[in-house]
Amino acid sequence: MDVRKRVGTNLRRLRSETGLSQERFALEHGFDRTYISGIERGARNPTIQVVQRIAEALEIDVMELFARPAE
Amino acid sequence: MDVRKRVGTNLRRLRSETGLSQERFALEHGFDRTYISGIERGARNPTIQVVQRIAEALEIDVMELFARPAE
Repeated sequence: MDVRKRVGTNLRRLRSETGLSQERFALEHGFDRTYISGIERGARNPTIQVVQRIAEALEIDVMELFARPAE
Repeated sequence: MDVRKRVGTNLRRLRSETGLSQERFALEHGFDRTYISGIERGARNPTIQVVQRIAEALEIDVMELFARPAE
């Protein structure tokens, strides 16, 4: 599985679990909504510092965004 | 700990465990040696696809490069 898809799938699940829409999550944490949408779809290739910032917004360890999602 | 430092520390340990120098590792897997050196020092901010390529070269899961290193 492509790492972009892996991070995107994890982000979508973890962001949904916070109860925030993509738009609210982006607004509250200073991201562009279309950027978050692109990462969730696996269409973006973010740097590790961007993924770290997202992990901090989710209050999780960055490693969780790289875990192999359940099929 | 900065994610760049975390990935760099893990890469240095895992690459050393293969018995390859930075130069050999880079040569054998098509990376620039100075780029690998920069990542190991935490001076670079690679994209997740670059980190994935490095994980494939190390024959490990990409998640291992994001694990919290032992202090």
